[in-house]
Amino acid sequence: MAGYKFGVVGSGSWATALVKILTDNGHRVNWWVRNEKQQDYIKQRRHNPQYLSNAYLNVQLLNIVSNANEVLQLSDVIVLAVPSAFICEVLKQVNKKELAGKKIVSAIKGIVPGPDVLLNDYLAENYGVELQNYFALLGPCHAEEVAAEKLSYLTFSGIDEDIAENISGYFKSSYINTVTNQDILGVQYAAVLKNIYALGAGIAHGLEYGDNFLSVYIANSADEMAGFLRKAGIQHIVVGEHQQQTESNKRDPNYAASVYLGDLLVTCYSPYSRNRTFGNMIGKGYTVQSAQLEMNMVAEGYNAAKCIYHINNKIGAEMPIASIVYRILWEKMSPVEGFEEIEKVLI
Amino acid sequence: MAGYKFGVVGSGSWATALVKILTDNGHRVNWWVRNEKQQDYIKQRRHNPQYLSNAYLNVQLLNIVSNANEVLQLSDVIVLAVPSAFICEVLKQVNKKELAGKKIVSAIKGIVPGPDVLLNDYLAENYGVELQNYFALLGPCHAEEVAAEKLSYLTFSGIDEDIAENISGYFKSSYINTVTNQDILGVQYAAVLKNIYALGAGIAHGLEYGDNFLSVYIANSADEMAGFLRKAGIQHIVVGEHQQQTESNKRDPNYAASVYLGDLLVTCYSPYSRNRTFGNMIGKGYTVQSAQLEMNMVAEGYNAAKCIYHINNKIGAEMPIASIVYRILWEKMSPVEGFEEIEKVLI
Repeated sequence: MAGYKFGVVGSGSWATALVKILTDNGHRVNWWVRNEKQQDYIKQRRHNPQYLSNAYLNVQLLNIVSNANEVLQLSDVIVLAVPSAFICEVLKQVNKKELAGKKIVSAIKGIVPGPDVLLNDYLAENYGVELQNYFALLGPCHAEEVAAEKLSYLTFSGIDEDIAENISGYFKSSYINTVTNQDILGVQYAAVLKNIYALGAGIAHGLEYGDNFLSVYIANSADEMAGFLRKAGIQHIVVGEHQQQTESNKRDPNYAASVYLGDLLVTCYSPYSRNRTFGNMIGKGYTVQSAQLEMNMVAEGYNAAKCIYHINNKIGAEMPIASIVYRILWEKMSPVEGFEEIEKVLI
Repeated sequence: MAGYKFGVVGSGSWATALVKILTDNGHRVNWWVRNEKQQDYIKQRRHNPQYLSNAYLNVQLLNIVSNANEVLQLSDVIVLAVPSAFICEVLKQVNKKELAGKKIVSAIKGIVPGPDVLLNDYLAENYGVELQNYFALLGPCHAEEVAAEKLSYLTFSGIDEDIAENISGYFKSSYINTVTNQDILGVQYAAVLKNIYALGAGIAHGLEYGDNFLSVYIANSADEMAGFLRKAGIQHIVVGEHQQQTESNKRDPNYAASVYLGDLLVTCYSPYSRNRTFGNMIGKGYTVQSAQLEMNMVAEGYNAAKCIYHINNKIGAEMPIASIVYRILWEKMSPVEGFEEIEKVLI
C-alpha cells in the first residue's frame, strides 16, 4: 500500500462515519471541522456532539483543523464528505494549487447545485482536477449502521481501478467490505437517480399504494436507472477520453451490484430516508414549499429530479418514472394523476 | 374475448383472492371448496371464514362445489391455487380426461414435491397436459392487499401470449393491472428462487446483519437469479419445443420486470413472509426441525433450496448464495459460517 495520508472535509454524519472507519483501522486522519466548539467537544468527549454521536472516535489518530487548506496540505487523499448543497461554499475556501496532484475521493451523493453537473466536472472546470485523480466512494451505507459496526459494503470507483483498490484498502475492516469498479460517472449518476426514485416511492406511500405496488415500482425504477446509465454510455465516454480500453472496460457494469441496485433498494425501502419522507408528504397533499418548511430541509431528490430531467434531454433515455416525479415536484402535476401515468408503464 | 368459463381449485387465501378478483369483474366462477361447512359459511356470510376473511365475495356469481371433476367439467379455464405441498393429492381426485383441451392456469408458487419438477412437467407426464394449454399466474401479490383492493400487478405467462393476454383480461380491474410474457418456465423458476433468497434474507436478519447488508444481499440475489434463468436458457427450450420463434422470443426476458425482481423484493422485504420468518429462526439458532415445529408449517423455500440445488447440478449456473442457503438448511452448515462465505461473493 502506498502510505497515503488522509484528509476528510466535512463533519456531518457521513464524514464522521468515514473518520471512524479510517481511525478504527489505525490510520491517521486530518479532519476539517469548521466549528471550534465542535472541535473541542470531539477532542474531549471522543465523539461528534451533533452527528452520529454514538460513534466513538479514536482522537489519538485525529488531527482536527479548522482551515480547509491545512487539511489539503497535510494529505494525499482528500475525502470530500459534505452535503452537495454546501460543496461550492466549502470549495471556495480552497486554494486551487493545494488540489494539484491530490487524489480526490468524493463521498458526495448528489449533483453540484447551480451548474448542475457531477462533482468531477465541477472540479475539472474550476480547479483543474483531472479525472484520473478523482474517485467516488459510495454505499449502500447508512452512517448509523457504520456507528453500530454492522457489515456494510462501500464501492470505490475510478478510471484507474488499481488506485481505487489501493485507497479502498484503507477502509476495509471487520465491518466494511469494499468493491471497486471503473464506472466513475455511472456510479455518481446512480447515486443521484436513486434519490429521485426514493422520493417517488415516498409519494406512492403517501398516496396509500401498498407493498405489492411498491415492489413493482422499485423493480421498474431499477430497470429505468440501468437504461439511463447504459444509454449515457458512461463507460465508453470514460474509456474514450483516456484510451485505457481493457477487457473489463468493454463490458457494461453489472447494474445489480451494490452500488447500483443495492443503494436504490436501501434508499427506497428505508423509512428514515429523507427523500422518502419528503415524497410521503407530497403524496399526502403537502405542497413542495410546505413540505420543505415542515422538514426544515431540502431532500436531495428534489433538485436531482430537475437536473436529471435536463441532462436526459440530451441523453434521451426512456425515463417515464423520473420524468413524472419531476413534473409532480416542479410542474405542479397532481401526484394522483402522475401515478396514474406511472401505473400504465410498469411491467 | 373468448367467453371463457372459469374454475378455481383451492380455498386458501390466494384462491380466495383470485375468486374475488374474477367475481368483482362480474365473471361467474365454479369454485372447488372441499369442506362443506366452509361452503355453507361462504354462501351465507359471503366471505371465507378462515382465509382472507375480510374479502367480500359476490356469491351470486359463485357456483361452489365439492367435487373437483365437476369444476373441471363446467370450466374452460382451470385456475390451480392450492399450496404446492398439496397439489399432488388434489390432482389424484381429478379424472385425466376432464383436463383434455382445458386451459390450466397455475397460481402455484413452488415445485411439485416428490418428483421435484415444475407443475407443467408434472401435468404433462401424468395428465397429458400440453405446454400450449398451460399458463402461469404470478405476482408480486400478497393476497391481503387484494382484499384491501390495493393496486397489484399480475403476470400471465404462456407460450401462446395471445391466449395469456386473453385470460389476463378477465382479471384486469381497478385494482389489478396485468402483464403478459412467454417465459413460462422462467417465471415459475423465479417464483421458486425468490423463496430461497427470502429465506436467506431471514437468516441474515436473524444473524443481526443490518439494512445496508440486506440491500447488498438482495441485489446480488437478483443477479444470481437472472444468471440462473439466463443460463437455463428457459426461453430457448420453450421455443425449441414448439417452433414458435418470434421476434420477442429471441430476446432475454426483462429480469427487472415485476414477476422477477418485483416478486423477489416483496418477498424478501416483507416481515410477514413465511420464508423470511423461518429463516430468521434459523439465523437465531433454531434447528430446522425446531423451527418447523415452532411455525407448525414448512416454509416453501426449504424444499425449494434442495430442488434448485439438484436442478442446478445440471444447469451449472453460478449460485453461491442459493447453494449456501441449501447447505445451511440441508447439510447442517452453521449459519454464521455460511454467511461469512456469502459475504465474500457479494459485490
